[in-house]
Amino acid sequence: MTRTEPAGTPLGDDFHLYDTTLRDGAQREGISYSVADKLAVARLLDELGVGFIEGGWPGALPKDTEFFAKAAAGELILKHAVLVAFGSTRKAGTTAAQDGQVRALLDAQAPVVTLVAKSDRRHIERALRVDVPEACAMVADTVSFLVGEGRRVFLDAEHFFDGYAYDSDTSLRVLDAAMTAGADLVVLCDTNGGQLPLGLAETVRTVSERTGFRLGIHCQDDTSCAVANSIAAVQAGATHVQCTANGYGERAGNADLFAVAGNLVTKLDMPVLPAGNAAELTRVSHALAEIANIAPDAHHAYVGGSAFAHKAGLHASAIKVDPLLYNHIDPALVGNDMRVLVTEMAGRASLELKGRELGVDLAGRPEALTSAVNKVKRLEAGGWSFEAADASLELLLRQEIEGPAEQPFTLESYRVVLDHHAGGEVVSEATVKVHVGGERVIATAEGNGPVHALDAALRKALTPHLSWLDRVELADYKVRILAGHPGTDAVTRVLIESSDGEREWTTVGVHGNIVEASWLALCDALVHKSLRI
Amino acid sequence: MTRTEPAGTPLGDDFHLYDTTLRDGAQREGISYSVADKLAVARLLDELGVGFIEGGWPGALPKDTEFFAKAAAGELILKHAVLVAFGSTRKAGTTAAQDGQVRALLDAQAPVVTLVAKSDRRHIERALRVDVPEACAMVADTVSFLVGEGRRVFLDAEHFFDGYAYDSDTSLRVLDAAMTAGADLVVLCDTNGGQLPLGLAETVRTVSERTGFRLGIHCQDDTSCAVANSIAAVQAGATHVQCTANGYGERAGNADLFAVAGNLVTKLDMPVLPAGNAAELTRVSHALAEIANIAPDAHHAYVGGSAFAHKAGLHASAIKVDPLLYNHIDPALVGNDMRVLVTEMAGRASLELKGRELGVDLAGRPEALTSAVNKVKRLEAGGWSFEAADASLELLLRQEIEGPAEQPFTLESYRVVLDHHAGGEVVSEATVKVHVGGERVIATAEGNGPVHALDAALRKALTPHLSWLDRVELADYKVRILAGHPGTDAVTRVLIESSDGEREWTTVGVHGNIVEASWLALCDALVHKSLRI
Repeated sequence: MTRTEPAGTPLGDDFHLYDTTLRDGAQREGISYSVADKLAVARLLDELGVGFIEGGWPGALPKDTEFFAKAAAGELILKHAVLVAFGSTRKAGTTAAQDGQVRALLDAQAPVVTLVAKSDRRHIERALRVDVPEACAMVADTVSFLVGEGRRVFLDAEHFFDGYAYDSDTSLRVLDAAMTAGADLVVLCDTNGGQLPLGLAETVRTVSERTGFRLGIHCQDDTSCAVANSIAAVQAGATHVQCTANGYGERAGNADLFAVAGNLVTKLDMPVLPAGNAAELTRVSHALAEIANIAPDAHHAYVGGSAFAHKAGLHASAIKVDPLLYNHIDPALVGNDMRVLVTEMAGRASLELKGRELGVDLAGRPEALTSAVNKVKRLEAGGWSFEAADASLELLLRQEIEGPAEQPFTLESYRVVLDHHAGGEVVSEATVKVHVGGERVIATAEGNGPVHALDAALRKALTPHLSWLDRVELADYKVRILAGHPGTDAVTRVLIESSDGEREWTTVGVHGNIVEASWLALCDALVHKSLRI
Repeated sequence: MTRTEPAGTPLGDDFHLYDTTLRDGAQREGISYSVADKLAVARLLDELGVGFIEGGWPGALPKDTEFFAKAAAGELILKHAVLVAFGSTRKAGTTAAQDGQVRALLDAQAPVVTLVAKSDRRHIERALRVDVPEACAMVADTVSFLVGEGRRVFLDAEHFFDGYAYDSDTSLRVLDAAMTAGADLVVLCDTNGGQLPLGLAETVRTVSERTGFRLGIHCQDDTSCAVANSIAAVQAGATHVQCTANGYGERAGNADLFAVAGNLVTKLDMPVLPAGNAAELTRVSHALAEIANIAPDAHHAYVGGSAFAHKAGLHASAIKVDPLLYNHIDPALVGNDMRVLVTEMAGRASLELKGRELGVDLAGRPEALTSAVNKVKRLEAGGWSFEAADASLELLLRQEIEGPAEQPFTLESYRVVLDHHAGGEVVSEATVKVHVGGERVIATAEGNGPVHALDAALRKALTPHLSWLDRVELADYKVRILAGHPGTDAVTRVLIESSDGEREWTTVGVHGNIVEASWLALCDALVHKSLRI
């Protein structure tokens, strides 16, 4: 095994963008990667172009052992990244060569090993229950053994910042033990996540000056500063930064790979990804959220669906003058789009921009635009909201330009019955009467609740006539009760997100009756889909 | 009108914790506060103890105008905070006194006005289309007019950091125009959110040294650094920091009030909240999420449900030794719990405390407390949430101490029928069969929707027997669809706020069927009222 350096990244070995989604990210509550998931995550991170991928803790976790075995067997071919095995230094009172956990790190066959070691005297004495000389010997012994076996070794100095503030001498001795034994670099870890950027940068600078060691940084987000702390550490001299996809991690999470990379590339002009690959940040972030089975955060910096969305009328009119006056970067740099939200706060300018985004050209149709603005305003005053319902807005705008869309079916009537029986059982049943494909169809179905029953009955009635309906799923359903103005009744607003496996679209319905509001959103969803058959 | 200073905060006027959830936070996609919501948000923020609450833009948005009118009419009594009206400087080519928008700011009768003004020459020339002297005159004229009318004025210098980097002279002239005209302070705004902490702190320090002005800070989260930037600005000399609840705001959002306050109080030892009030951060954060109808972020720093939850085996074993070795602060400081190992203890403490608040003494009843903790945990795992439903929690706790409460009535069965008739008419009708006052009563009523019909039928059945029911109103109704765990169906959570003209109380119901969930919350509301007859 030879030493391997990240080949595909522009800064080569001078700077490490190091991902630990598969190890530290997997600590997040609710994440449980299968081995296949782990391989898929690694491939996406490699496509993006990170320098190092920490794959897990072989020997400690069976799935991680299997992941490294599959990688060694050729199931994971990396173009840019180098694979890293994570583990601990040897136990007290033995040798590295005899320590099973250390041997498992070798068996994993990854070219790099990252070792974690305690660097806070309180943790050494109270959790590890050894003295400082033995703690340093555990580090030195394990590092030199692995280096002797041809591995490149990085040391994660756990609880470094808290330890350094408490007893800097001990913390520096741990770093020194690793570097003297042949480690490539030492990673200062804010394990409890309590640091703030100015103080952290000062510590990184001081440690760099006192030791001359190559330094890395690993931040947790407990002060909501993990990204800022990581960037501040780089500005203070760290040349290796550990992150996780979407900030996944224990407690408040880790430093988010996408915001860190976005900041390094666009703010500090550091080409930490292969040329052009920053434009993959948004796609890769969303794909990794899918694999983790966590809804992407729309408000995620750089890559969120709302990261470049503008709502305030104050801004929207000026955005037409020059988009860059109101965006901190060109969204295309990170593969994102500028969206314009349509709300009661905005007017003609934003609706025209929005139409362009939806493929409806209102620029040459001032009368249609006026009519659409008035319609949107009237509807929004009645509780409708199109900012999250692009599909309903598109239908509304098309109607202004093209007239009413052809309906795939028409409703005659529906009835929903909810029974709470004397025995306590609750049953929902719906019957629809619709006209579709020249026929009158009546269908009845049960559901968990009134809307579910209605959706089931409608599908039962339509699917024999509309084969594409099979692929359309109700992906998400949101309800908001809007308080009425004095003298009026409250209304219910329903947002329905639909999916056909390739595309997702959102529609809105508003009515005093929640079932009718849901019905309206459901119909819009089907009409919108039918326009794309 | 006299100048008002934040009375209830320990740092008095020396430091401003300034909340703009109701104005800038409302720019977040999906948030749409009613006037009642706005009042509820303001009351919670005041309970927490922020110094200033920016209530909106009177004159520009009808709901904001109405909010200020209600506040002026005595519907909003603030203990700690001072209310602020937000608006723009006068238009070009007129006087402040003649500008309708400026007059609306006076009409709002808030003691403080925050004016927004462009401080980037490119925005002045290209978006505002005036020259720099006129832009400065617009600032000076508007500030001095409002100060002359007895208002305290803060100036939001929009796009300050980008503008200062492009043409510092123009940006400083705008600040100077405001301060010379009598503004109290100028707020440096990172409107596009592109700043990083080290550079931002340097700019704040330089501007402070060059001008000697009192400075505030307003950060957006586009680099994921809004909290870090706000803290860095304070460390560099800013003494006024603008935040929003849970970081709500346009695009990636604003600086999060809870992380900023958590950092200032626990990391920088700045008592920016009244003594002990930091322990309300978690509760208020979650309550404000409920009002915004946005699921709280479990991974939110300081206040998230997972912020102190430990998963890593590496940590969990050491936590037993000393919890503070693995937590950056004591979670109780911010009203949060450490979950996993000591949930039992933490859950007990907070439930006992909550019981005391609700008038249920659990201190001497350890078994009842254990049983209540277990019940709450089991229900919360199933989607119930008592954070915003004190009345339901009180009933649950009372039941542990006193046994089941006497029911004012019992249900035999109900049926709700919803018809969308062929003519397009939508009708909801409910029938209830109940036992009350020794009689079996059947009643049928119509309503706008299924829940309204059910509520109407129940009232019709009960009111002849329970005279107090007449005064009880359904004041607010909120619905949230909760995604199911893998293999389970989604459930619906309903929160009902009731009022009897003197008191308001909130109850919760959870079920797969929205109508049954509503029914459960409705029953709790009536039982709770019956205990106070």
